[in-house]
Amino acid sequence: MKVEILTVGTELLLGHIVDTNAAWLAGELAGSGVDCYHITTVGDHVDRIVEALSAALSRAEAVIVCGGLGPTHDDVTRDALAAVMKVALVRDDALVEKIRGMFVAKGRTMAASNARQADVPSGAMVIPQRIGTAPGLICPVESPTGSKVIYALPGVPSEMKEMALRAVFPELIRRRGSGSVIMSRVIRTWGLPESVLAEILAPRIRELDANAADSGNGMSPTLAFQASGIDGVKVRVTVKAADALSATILLDSEEEIVRGLLGDAVFGVDSVTMEIAVGAMLAEGGLTLGLAESVTGGLIASRIVATPGASTWFRGSVVAYGSGVKQDVLGISDGPVVKREAAREMAEAARRLFGAAIGLATTGVAGPDRQENVEVGTVHVGLSGPGEHTAVLSVQLPGDREQVRQLASISALDLLRRELISNSRHV
Amino acid sequence: MKVEILTVGTELLLGHIVDTNAAWLAGELAGSGVDCYHITTVGDHVDRIVEALSAALSRAEAVIVCGGLGPTHDDVTRDALAAVMKVALVRDDALVEKIRGMFVAKGRTMAASNARQADVPSGAMVIPQRIGTAPGLICPVESPTGSKVIYALPGVPSEMKEMALRAVFPELIRRRGSGSVIMSRVIRTWGLPESVLAEILAPRIRELDANAADSGNGMSPTLAFQASGIDGVKVRVTVKAADALSATILLDSEEEIVRGLLGDAVFGVDSVTMEIAVGAMLAEGGLTLGLAESVTGGLIASRIVATPGASTWFRGSVVAYGSGVKQDVLGISDGPVVKREAAREMAEAARRLFGAAIGLATTGVAGPDRQENVEVGTVHVGLSGPGEHTAVLSVQLPGDREQVRQLASISALDLLRRELISNSRHV
Repeated sequence: MKVEILTVGTELLLGHIVDTNAAWLAGELAGSGVDCYHITTVGDHVDRIVEALSAALSRAEAVIVCGGLGPTHDDVTRDALAAVMKVALVRDDALVEKIRGMFVAKGRTMAASNARQADVPSGAMVIPQRIGTAPGLICPVESPTGSKVIYALPGVPSEMKEMALRAVFPELIRRRGSGSVIMSRVIRTWGLPESVLAEILAPRIRELDANAADSGNGMSPTLAFQASGIDGVKVRVTVKAADALSATILLDSEEEIVRGLLGDAVFGVDSVTMEIAVGAMLAEGGLTLGLAESVTGGLIASRIVATPGASTWFRGSVVAYGSGVKQDVLGISDGPVVKREAAREMAEAARRLFGAAIGLATTGVAGPDRQENVEVGTVHVGLSGPGEHTAVLSVQLPGDREQVRQLASISALDLLRRELISNSRHV
Repeated sequence: MKVEILTVGTELLLGHIVDTNAAWLAGELAGSGVDCYHITTVGDHVDRIVEALSAALSRAEAVIVCGGLGPTHDDVTRDALAAVMKVALVRDDALVEKIRGMFVAKGRTMAASNARQADVPSGAMVIPQRIGTAPGLICPVESPTGSKVIYALPGVPSEMKEMALRAVFPELIRRRGSGSVIMSRVIRTWGLPESVLAEILAPRIRELDANAADSGNGMSPTLAFQASGIDGVKVRVTVKAADALSATILLDSEEEIVRGLLGDAVFGVDSVTMEIAVGAMLAEGGLTLGLAESVTGGLIASRIVATPGASTWFRGSVVAYGSGVKQDVLGISDGPVVKREAAREMAEAARRLFGAAIGLATTGVAGPDRQENVEVGTVHVGLSGPGEHTAVLSVQLPGDREQVRQLASISALDLLRRELISNSRHV
């Protein structure tokens, strides 16, 4: 089954926003085993939307169109849908009342223009809105190449996703019947440069390529890399299989091979970030964490508090930024603060201050200028605990201010992760 | 002049990456006053690239195609270009040697496959590569609708941008001759809900629409809104004018009108974030800031340290996350901590601890669950200083955990901004 994606919005053509909706929809289609060969973007312009929908319907069985369902005069996707279906737009009075009710529930009055959102092409089915005020539409179209369908979704990402998952994909999968699925898994790593990672995996990639060439059906797994700043270096495994179960078995087997090759560099898969991986180990060991952040400036803390369940193991952080703060608040010895000994002292201070089992600290130079005659990108991570254990990691990180901070944050958490692994092996 | 964008890459159709290239190119085209009405994405597939190029050339004077110029067998954009130009691909031996030289310079050996990157459609001009190994191409095409051109650029964003700025846009602008430019400015606001903002600006928008309809040339400024979480609610002014100077004058004049209507809700334009705006005021007043962050968990600190020059006014932050930390580290009174009085005490503690002129603090419930019987989204911001001054702001914020934190961060900084404005008015 082929489906095309059409995103509508003049702001996309002016480059004001990046089209994350298309990427999300494409990923979901691929995950459902639906082929998508074209993504098109046009502005809020009836004729161009009509033309793009017609072209898409001539090539595919279904089109997902996203955007242009709002209340303003710019929002003309409904008009284009009616034109493609060759029917009239009819105002749905019950829908007007529903939209009015959504405003009233928020203590507001519905503007007259919002009633436009209740205009439905005759014969289309309404997808009830749950988050925003724009309902979605399922529009059957009789075309020279058969009975097809257009799914129209709002352009606001949260509204679009909720509606796509609830009403569009289940319907699409039902329409598609059986087929093949494409699934992928992201193996997250830290500690090996991308080039080293590539070298380690090169023989396996050659092997997979050869298998694919031999079988000629393109069903062999593929591996791809992506350096992702604070999210580490990702290895993406993609497989195509007859069904989700077979695909999962292929993914599991390939993950095992990659883990075998990369060892402790792998910290998690898919949505398991470094914070989540570290948090799980701390929670399991009944350990708590306190931070002292200089170069990372609160970045580690803000990543941690976004992690579900962090309150069981995260105590807090002191962001020591102004000069003298490390001495006054953390009690660090006078003198230079961008050095290994300062990182260790800061970690001990954080541990003590927050009454935590482990203290973790960062100090370094994010740039743009050298500091204390130390080069930009130099970062020291200090660790104190559990027990008498201490450790310091010194790294030279590439990139600008923001990138140094991001890489310093993941480096710090990775030091903690590796110490916890090695602790558990020694016990 | 109309130009279309075609991005090529199966990874785009699988949703593995977001198409930031298209957004960047679209923004640059708009800034150069070139109309772009279609963006299309297809995979690494010769026939579909040929078809998409032909469709684009039937509608526009030029096409920028991006991606598929790499060395692997997947990279087939060159083949598609030759097919559209109806010419042969000819290997450019001098170009092969140049690519080989780039590898040698890095101490590496060129793989045989890289020679493919020197295949040039007969009659195309080569854009020399500076960053990667893929040269770009300028391909003249004689079509039924006239002499047109295709610019082919690599898909790696840094290589694409460098080449587009160096070779494509200057050539495009020369081709276009004189024309108009589209420019926009973002006016950033906080404190007014989007609907209230819309109501205040509605008469002005109607006026602009009427002007545009009267003149019939679409040259009147337009206003659009966008709620952007931690970045506030943005009002985007877009103008079209004969040249950059006239466009700037129009933008200045419209900005003045919008500022007149929105007053203190406006905190900055374009890249001036709330942190930058607040930082400028603190630096000007010679004031320093210390934070105590509970619900925001280090988010305010990490935003501030990303601000150039923050070290002159930012002292640090205590992220008080675990239970008891507010009492133990900040010396807050025992009892509930999600309340106005706790926010004030935390602000005073932060001010004292960091020896700052002003203390700012956040406490609240980010969710997913109620806490101390207080509803999710309830946030109190405390302010202490300068001098004897104190203030507390209580807000009820919408959204999930992450959104509540983001909105709490900007709300806190906005309280500080407004207090500084009112202070300066009373002096």
